[in-house]
Amino acid sequence: MENTRPLILITNDDSIDAPGLRCLAEAVRSMGDVIVVAPRHPQSGQSSALTVSAPLRISERPSDIGDNVRFFAVNGTPVDCVKLALHAIVPRRPDVVFSGINHGSNSGINVTYSGTMGAVIEACLLGIPAVGFSLLHHSLKADFGLSTAFVAAIAAEVIAKGLPAGVCLNVNIPARVIPEGIKVCRATRGHWTDEYKRYLDPLGVPFYLLTGHFINDEPEATDTDEYWLQRRYVSVVPVSADQTAHDAVRELTSRFEK
Amino acid sequence: MENTRPLILITNDDSIDAPGLRCLAEAVRSMGDVIVVAPRHPQSGQSSALTVSAPLRISERPSDIGDNVRFFAVNGTPVDCVKLALHAIVPRRPDVVFSGINHGSNSGINVTYSGTMGAVIEACLLGIPAVGFSLLHHSLKADFGLSTAFVAAIAAEVIAKGLPAGVCLNVNIPARVIPEGIKVCRATRGHWTDEYKRYLDPLGVPFYLLTGHFINDEPEATDTDEYWLQRRYVSVVPVSADQTAHDAVRELTSRFEK
Repeated sequence: MENTRPLILITNDDSIDAPGLRCLAEAVRSMGDVIVVAPRHPQSGQSSALTVSAPLRISERPSDIGDNVRFFAVNGTPVDCVKLALHAIVPRRPDVVFSGINHGSNSGINVTYSGTMGAVIEACLLGIPAVGFSLLHHSLKADFGLSTAFVAAIAAEVIAKGLPAGVCLNVNIPARVIPEGIKVCRATRGHWTDEYKRYLDPLGVPFYLLTGHFINDEPEATDTDEYWLQRRYVSVVPVSADQTAHDAVRELTSRFEK
Repeated sequence: MENTRPLILITNDDSIDAPGLRCLAEAVRSMGDVIVVAPRHPQSGQSSALTVSAPLRISERPSDIGDNVRFFAVNGTPVDCVKLALHAIVPRRPDVVFSGINHGSNSGINVTYSGTMGAVIEACLLGIPAVGFSLLHHSLKADFGLSTAFVAAIAAEVIAKGLPAGVCLNVNIPARVIPEGIKVCRATRGHWTDEYKRYLDPLGVPFYLLTGHFINDEPEATDTDEYWLQRRYVSVVPVSADQTAHDAVRELTSRFEK
């Protein structure tokens, strides 16, 4: 008899060892068969990067959370994990891809750099409904338990009804509280400031390490993820896999087609 | 007297040593002061990845194409180059950022993985008009000369009049021909197939290398970059730095806000 349970592919960017990954697997394992394919090493800030010329290897890890959850590590990026999972690991095409739960925020324009969302956008480009989950808490000891019911509710809705073509979801979850509810909204526009700290090495040569903080450029807007996260809501931002600025095509035609 | 010549920041993903980078600098050097800040090593497929915790170093390289062009190498990604250039290298805020000329296509959905366009999207997020240029020829010996006039024309237009807020440009150039003209269009939707080749290492353990080819999912569409590139036109695709799928916010509200 054919297996008709949904196949759920899970990945992340914090690595196969991250507590948030396990928490996500546990939150959705009752909804289908789960295959976890996650980076061997942390991949924060890897965006949609892929490994162009280095060899990728797959290693299965033991699962201690049930027979319907299998774990694999890949020595690559989140995008590599999705691509290689589909090519060489999954027994059938996944019905859905979930990524996370990320240890730290991916709200606002941070989505651009997010490896968590890189995996989600990859799945979306492949036509598979996909959701990235992030908790606004960087610690490896973050408490994911308060948000589990919301993660499960969003996952169940996407498994049941899919998503619009070309659209995936970026879900952020406030830390240390039971969320007030869910808000569908847009990403906050902002920018980073003081992005590097300068050091001198033992030879007196300068080097730089990334740091800085995010400035919300539209603090008065009430339809953004930052606005709702500050009010203890889970934010759900629909993200387009196609980055074309369709509204600008016509406007720019007269300027560049001469 | 204040320097009022435009400041042009140039980067790429093929590294400081790529011929396409030099070609771009030469094509625009008459339009302003040029500072090149490019990755020390090739960064193809690095998308918007940034270096989270490794030290970044800057080293100036000699310039042999004129006093108004300076070259710097950074041991990071294209996004790192833009961020660190603004933080520690440029004497004033650049008026424009150009990236490329990439050795190889960034048409269609490939823009997602493109380090060339990662740098451009970073500049756009910072509010600076930005354009990525790519030639549909992977060779380091590719002939960029046939397209120089088109690169210069697009660069001059952007320097003169800027771009709409939140929009940057992804320019692709057909190889081995004098282009017929310029077309403003959208990215082709498609997918990659046969993405990995499997090998066995000396111990008999499998590993995988990226390969495959792009399938155009809409070969009959006449408003895409692939369509116009095949007809020997330079394609100009406006790209949105904000990845929110604004049209989907309303549609998804009733499903997820319960």
